Amino acid sequence: MKVQPDRTIAELKELRSLTGDDDGAQRVAFTPVWRRARDWLKDKLAELPVRVHEDEAGNLWATMQGESDTALLIGGHIDSVPNGGWLDGCLNTMAGVEILRRLADQYGGRPPVTVKLVDWADEEGARFGMSLFGSSAFSGTIDMERCRSLVDKEGVTLAEALAGQGLELEAAPSAKSGQKDAGAYIELHIEQGPVLEGLDLPLGVVLGTYGVERHSIHYHGQAAHSGSTPMDRRKDAFLPAGRMASEVYGITTRHGGVSTIGFCSTRPGIVTSVVEDCTITLDQRHLEPEGLASLLADARSASDRFASEAGVDSEWERLWRIDPIKFHPELIELCDQAIAQTVGTSHRLPSGPLHDAAEVARAGIPTVMMFVQSLYGISHNRIEDTREEHLAAAVEAFDRLATSTIAWLEAGA
Amino acid sequence: MKVQPDRTIAELKELRSLTGDDDGAQRVAFTPVWRRARDWLKDKLAELPVRVHEDEAGNLWATMQGESDTALLIGGHIDSVPNGGWLDGCLNTMAGVEILRRLADQYGGRPPVTVKLVDWADEEGARFGMSLFGSSAFSGTIDMERCRSLVDKEGVTLAEALAGQGLELEAAPSAKSGQKDAGAYIELHIEQGPVLEGLDLPLGVVLGTYGVERHSIHYHGQAAHSGSTPMDRRKDAFLPAGRMASEVYGITTRHGGVSTIGFCSTRPGIVTSVVEDCTITLDQRHLEPEGLASLLADARSASDRFASEAGVDSEWERLWRIDPIKFHPELIELCDQAIAQTVGTSHRLPSGPLHDAAEVARAGIPTVMMFVQSLYGISHNRIEDTREEHLAAAVEAFDRLATSTIAWLEAGA
Repeated sequence: MKVQPDRTIAELKELRSLTGDDDGAQRVAFTPVWRRARDWLKDKLAELPVRVHEDEAGNLWATMQGESDTALLIGGHIDSVPNGGWLDGCLNTMAGVEILRRLADQYGGRPPVTVKLVDWADEEGARFGMSLFGSSAFSGTIDMERCRSLVDKEGVTLAEALAGQGLELEAAPSAKSGQKDAGAYIELHIEQGPVLEGLDLPLGVVLGTYGVERHSIHYHGQAAHSGSTPMDRRKDAFLPAGRMASEVYGITTRHGGVSTIGFCSTRPGIVTSVVEDCTITLDQRHLEPEGLASLLADARSASDRFASEAGVDSEWERLWRIDPIKFHPELIELCDQAIAQTVGTSHRLPSGPLHDAAEVARAGIPTVMMFVQSLYGISHNRIEDTREEHLAAAVEAFDRLATSTIAWLEAGA
Repeated sequence: MKVQPDRTIAELKELRSLTGDDDGAQRVAFTPVWRRARDWLKDKLAELPVRVHEDEAGNLWATMQGESDTALLIGGHIDSVPNGGWLDGCLNTMAGVEILRRLADQYGGRPPVTVKLVDWADEEGARFGMSLFGSSAFSGTIDMERCRSLVDKEGVTLAEALAGQGLELEAAPSAKSGQKDAGAYIELHIEQGPVLEGLDLPLGVVLGTYGVERHSIHYHGQAAHSGSTPMDRRKDAFLPAGRMASEVYGITTRHGGVSTIGFCSTRPGIVTSVVEDCTITLDQRHLEPEGLASLLADARSASDRFASEAGVDSEWERLWRIDPIKFHPELIELCDQAIAQTVGTSHRLPSGPLHDAAEVARAGIPTVMMFVQSLYGISHNRIEDTREEHLAAAVEAFDRLATSTIAWLEAGA
């Protein structure tokens, strides 16, 4: 009994036609197009021996009851960003559907353990600016106070958008009950980065999601005439900001992870004045808590030194942080083996972006993710793409991982 | 016979009351407030044995005919930026008025050489974005094509504004006839920088005005997700731009002059993306043509190297340039002596900002400027200030310079 990856690819194209336009995928969560995608998915599931229900946070569950109640969870998200790609999130869901089909064939609809496909609600957070809605409700980390304050750009609150889908915001935390009997969670996703393409490898095992430290750094100097102010009399706010550019590369070479200065602005920002105020953002990510702490400590100390040498004041404002979330070591081994058996060579890499899998792992459920190569490392864009032979290999390897994880759960049960 | 600096200070305060408000001086050229200042100036001149006329470019001349037609020109500008300071430009003019008074007393209105006070029109260029209107018409460097295209933010053209003052734009180049018999030009100005204050000196001799190279530099890399893109796979447009920050300080240490990165912008400019496009401006100034060329060559070569090392493209766009303009060596000596005799110690320094004096020097007329200390190095702002004892010393030293320059003209005539 084998999965049929060609069917998955055909279904992804069908979904693209149904819910995309010339600008890309338009399956923004809690909108009519998303609902259309969900209905299409339910039609596919209706042909399978599964019980389908939506939980209090809008997550769609398809449960194939097994010999044991212990459950393997397979996750994905059919929602997209506006003008999104054809694979981000829905590849995961549709690969899961294909695995359910294979299990239905192989076990007559009753596999050794229970298998649940979950299509998470609003992974992207594109409309309300908060990602991982459904999976954070499941994991219990959801920030309800924040949820109550969320409003889209048309002035619709999250609570109103949910009500339009028959959901009650205040009930969302009850989705936590989905954790019952969950023994393992696996998720397939496009890489959304250039690592596998750079190595010319189709598939990789994800070690976990990076912890993130995100700051805005303000440097305050003194405006002065560009012609009349000697260099040694300046308090130039761009000087320490600029020096951070190469410094963060050096710091990241020492400690690993990634660091990005994504924004820089200057005031007064005119050609004839020394910069009085300069603001940059710094986004730092690392898979190890100690590594993340080192990235931050070294950047702070360099920034303080540069500011002091330039005679300017500096202030750090934390925009956001999250701890690193590591996936399960035994499932990482199983994923590595599944990839090696399918395409010969595997590769282990961290995930820069967050994923629903991170929320599931935070709930203490053994978790692993598999990445398939993204062309050009591009995602959240209609040109997002992956070679079809790699998509096929991904479905096959992911199915192998499902098999070995079921065996792992049986052995542990 | 001596000048009375207290009278000059009192007149500057009178002018401030007449033409300023809580936000500072409001004598923007070709406006009613500027005309009020001019009328007030004419009233002062009416008490002196001078012929007063306005030339085709709106420059106001007060001519005291001497034994010889050879003329000493003393220049200033009563126009200001909006919300300007109480000294910028009008100190020059009013010190000139005081010198005319002293000459009238001393020589019964007929000094050895002709002495002309000129109040230049629209030195600041605050309204139409082009400075040195009157003095460039005088020097013959005025760009008439550019003048014809100038419009203020209310949609009024320069030609219309001039017509409102009884002036015809197309006639402005005729102001060049004012060069006839001009033997020397002297101008007093506040420093508008921190150099003399840093040295604790009241007065300095200006060696000339810096040449300027002004560029916008665009770096073009590739946007990429801050989490999923390893450091060695990035084309980060902020990296070379940031590296320029400290590089221009190093280059300026090697070659002298000043260099300023006054503006930096990033696109997409979000915390979670590597910068795809970064633009900075670079303003470089030097008193020697070779020095200016070296500043530019080294900055270009560093920028090219940084761009290449970061894997990004770069493009330089010249915004403006002007050659250095050096003042007359013998007049520099005379100015040095006048300062030393008045306050004990002189200092030689270049001028970063351009001045009307630079236009006069470009016309081949022997020229020098004297600077008086600015507090905090601040100008173009209502808090612009200079200690009254320094203003008094400036008027006295500037009068000494007028005396020695008249003698120098007599000797040369």
